[in-house]
Amino acid sequence: MTKFPLIASLVALMAACPLSAQEPEKKEYPSPNAIVDAAPASDWKAIAASDLLVMDLAPDAKGEARRVVIQLMPPPFSQGWIGNIRKLAAAKFWDGTSINRVQDNYVVQWGDAGYDNPESGETEQKALPEGLEVVPESEYSAQIIIRDRDKFLAKIDRSFRKRDQYASAKFFLQGWPLASEYVQHTPIQICDDQGECKPAPADYYKEAAWPIHCYGAVGVGRNLSPNTGSGAELYTVIGHAPRHLDRNIAVVGRIVEGIEHLSSLPRGKGQLGFYADASKRVPIQSIRLGNDLTEAERPKFEYLETDSKAFAQYADARANRRDPFFIKPAGGTDICNIPVPVRRVNAD
Amino acid sequence: MTKFPLIASLVALMAACPLSAQEPEKKEYPSPNAIVDAAPASDWKAIAASDLLVMDLAPDAKGEARRVVIQLMPPPFSQGWIGNIRKLAAAKFWDGTSINRVQDNYVVQWGDAGYDNPESGETEQKALPEGLEVVPESEYSAQIIIRDRDKFLAKIDRSFRKRDQYASAKFFLQGWPLASEYVQHTPIQICDDQGECKPAPADYYKEAAWPIHCYGAVGVGRNLSPNTGSGAELYTVIGHAPRHLDRNIAVVGRIVEGIEHLSSLPRGKGQLGFYADASKRVPIQSIRLGNDLTEAERPKFEYLETDSKAFAQYADARANRRDPFFIKPAGGTDICNIPVPVRRVNAD
Repeated sequence: MTKFPLIASLVALMAACPLSAQEPEKKEYPSPNAIVDAAPASDWKAIAASDLLVMDLAPDAKGEARRVVIQLMPPPFSQGWIGNIRKLAAAKFWDGTSINRVQDNYVVQWGDAGYDNPESGETEQKALPEGLEVVPESEYSAQIIIRDRDKFLAKIDRSFRKRDQYASAKFFLQGWPLASEYVQHTPIQICDDQGECKPAPADYYKEAAWPIHCYGAVGVGRNLSPNTGSGAELYTVIGHAPRHLDRNIAVVGRIVEGIEHLSSLPRGKGQLGFYADASKRVPIQSIRLGNDLTEAERPKFEYLETDSKAFAQYADARANRRDPFFIKPAGGTDICNIPVPVRRVNAD
Repeated sequence: MTKFPLIASLVALMAACPLSAQEPEKKEYPSPNAIVDAAPASDWKAIAASDLLVMDLAPDAKGEARRVVIQLMPPPFSQGWIGNIRKLAAAKFWDGTSINRVQDNYVVQWGDAGYDNPESGETEQKALPEGLEVVPESEYSAQIIIRDRDKFLAKIDRSFRKRDQYASAKFFLQGWPLASEYVQHTPIQICDDQGECKPAPADYYKEAAWPIHCYGAVGVGRNLSPNTGSGAELYTVIGHAPRHLDRNIAVVGRIVEGIEHLSSLPRGKGQLGFYADASKRVPIQSIRLGNDLTEAERPKFEYLETDSKAFAQYADARANRRDPFFIKPAGGTDICNIPVPVRRVNAD
């Protein structure tokens, strides 16, 4: 059967397993989840209601509610599209639109699927609200100033930062997985919130950084370049991270609750997973910004600060699983295999 | 909002895009799918019926059939478990068992969920067939002999092979994505199928290689080490590649058709995504080896040879998307983002 010179017999490699060789007394290693559970309250940071987008789908076949909650990205990433999304939510643009694409191992997409006007014979789109920005492709990435010893970089094994298959570097910033490439060392000006600037020390440098397409990332559907999409058509990733989309489409956020209401939908049978049969579309009742809901209605979430010691321990444990089930730590991981812990604060 | 010195304004980076700078005449690049479609018939290799496992689930709520087809791995990988799986299929062990776990962004698992005997008060498991092998952990990887200029390595950009975040190397062999680590250079004996051995040239070396957990990979559920599972409980990956499981659980195959019948199932609400409510389990009508079906019933598939020129072009295009939708090729990819093309030969 094989064309290559293969040794048929399988040879034991576990004899060199560091767990048994280096640790005469068996140490109990906590699981990544246990590390997260043990993180002090001070390592958790609240997500502002204004950064949440709450999507209510029509109830399912059994009448059960389906709510999906999205967290929008912080500046300086994708803010043009996020501004549009805030306007679209305020205008209730998505109410009455639908989930209209479900492609296995790829994306679920929603927005206006168009209405086939029987009189004109044309597909008509819902009117967009006034004042949406046309965002240039340059905003697929943003320049940031960092230095290698910044705390959000240093606490995770340095080799982690420099090993990525889609970019020169990867890291976490303010709870978000990012990739980047080097732009420039000194001279760099660092400016504060008041616009006061001063020269940066020599170990600071500029990178171009961009948000990446991990499972649950939310992005902006678009037509061919130079179109970048308005934000009216959104999608989320429901499969292996399609990171070839990084810097080709805007990532604006991630799903923090309820992705199962999207990922478990029947796959579309049309091209690219669009529902060929319009009756399969799932109606969207409403999409609202968290701060447009009443205080009682608002879902509250917090994320584990990615510059915290607990997060560094968690990331290390994801890359080196040593909890009881595991026998061989990988010694590394890709950034999408370290989902940033997000938890609900209030009860449902 | 930000704690870090960030430049608020976003700067255009696309000016340096090689597409516009280096190619005054716009060249049309084919998409990965177009490359696959154009591959010559000789690059496609039939999958033996004896390497297919055909799982028929109970029809869905609308009475539609649900068939899932799995391809088993070739030697020397995971053959102990695969031998067990062949015996389990021949004994019709899985008939009447169920899909009993669906964990979002992780796995769907099936097999015997146990029967709660009301008289004894105990959960009883279905009896396993005679003659199943107890497979040692050493079989999570297999030793192979390769050399860098082997055709299955050389046609893909060399940097691809050496960039992996979970292993020293990654490559494709006989249609399968694998990871590996170096074991030994000379002296190595190369043996043929008749057991005749001779010393290998100096550029041959041994690696320990193992199959990896990409989307759709099928693995063997197990209890805590040193248990390795019999093969009676199987799972498939329905999310981002959980490659921390590599070398910790046996990978025995992959789903080549019908994964949507598993990936779109409702997520289980019990621990680890098990269905807390037993009525949610999806009955398995039967699992059969392809060669146990009649010739007319047998599904026929073929895969694109991973040592073909077409596959190398396809892999390169996956890593460097330049088809019309894309504006920024990534210049790299992880191995699970290059799914090996598999196609059906006969009509349904």
